[in-house]
Amino acid sequence: MSAPLKIYFVTSNEGKVREANAVLRRYGLAVVPYPARKLELQSESLEEVASYAARSLAGKVPEPFFVEDSGLFIYSLRGFPGPYSSYVYRTIGLRGVLKLMEGVSDRRAKFVAVAALCLRGEIHVFRGEVEGIIALQARGAGGFGYDPIFMPLGSNKTFAEMSTEEKCRHSHRAKALRALAKYIIDEVVREHSGNSCA
Amino acid sequence: MSAPLKIYFVTSNEGKVREANAVLRRYGLAVVPYPARKLELQSESLEEVASYAARSLAGKVPEPFFVEDSGLFIYSLRGFPGPYSSYVYRTIGLRGVLKLMEGVSDRRAKFVAVAALCLRGEIHVFRGEVEGIIALQARGAGGFGYDPIFMPLGSNKTFAEMSTEEKCRHSHRAKALRALAKYIIDEVVREHSGNSCA
Repeated sequence: MSAPLKIYFVTSNEGKVREANAVLRRYGLAVVPYPARKLELQSESLEEVASYAARSLAGKVPEPFFVEDSGLFIYSLRGFPGPYSSYVYRTIGLRGVLKLMEGVSDRRAKFVAVAALCLRGEIHVFRGEVEGIIALQARGAGGFGYDPIFMPLGSNKTFAEMSTEEKCRHSHRAKALRALAKYIIDEVVREHSGNSCA
Repeated sequence: MSAPLKIYFVTSNEGKVREANAVLRRYGLAVVPYPARKLELQSESLEEVASYAARSLAGKVPEPFFVEDSGLFIYSLRGFPGPYSSYVYRTIGLRGVLKLMEGVSDRRAKFVAVAALCLRGEIHVFRGEVEGIIALQARGAGGFGYDPIFMPLGSNKTFAEMSTEEKCRHSHRAKALRALAKYIIDEVVREHSGNSCA
């Protein structure tokens, strides 16, 4: 069995690294966190935010590397907090979001993640989504960010009440990263085994 | 009397153009709106957002030009909505912000504007601030954005209850633009009259 292929993840979020590892190790990929400042655009398109950030890091971070941007989009709030989920979390927090949802009957929301992979100087983008609803109150101590108030469709647990493995069966991030893993396996591992057989 | 000096303002916000004209015409400057897509960074520093946007437009927009970025910073909400004021306005709106402020006794806030001027390829940044409080409900039909819920310190009117001229006596944007005007007059008009006398 060959050594796992290293893949660099530009983030300072330990929760994201933990989840990326849980998903990518099954594909023989070892996630290495890489601290670097990302240039993040103001845009309502996570694809644009992630691909611009990846492009600005090409040549500065060892390849293959990826960045990931994600957001919680609440339908009755016109998609708020969306691409600015992290800022909103740091300021008004879960309490603020729950206050905005007081008395609101339509509690549908989706989590979206976009991973942008840089491979041979080219950027490839992968999207994952999960539909769910906003809980009436925060529950659970796992995960991070909005996990305590998000219940994926078909579950009565919030993401914060699940183990990392269980969250990754549902999550937006896991979906985006599985697509990324399949792509990179196709491109890199196949090429690599081709070479070693030649 | 010489013709007014044209200065390009990269914005699609008509309210901002109206205010910029009200301020800058007193300095012999004629504001010309210039539609162009700005690259706006995600950053909690308006200076960084404005100067990055201006730098990305240098060489593409006739000089002198400026961009302006502004935000409403509510103290009890840790600065929210801050640099993302425009997105928050488009999603949860004044109603959402007022809901977040329900039952909150500390209603202090400040409006901040940063103008970034591009002159001979160099970027110069000017900041204006105004302290005030968040009204209990929206009042007035003038201005734009958060004007109906912001009362500057020492006034019992919201910005939306004031004429453009009256708002510009107090406003963050007018302060930043007066500083910009003084700078450009010094740099351009003085040089110009120097040349014409030579």
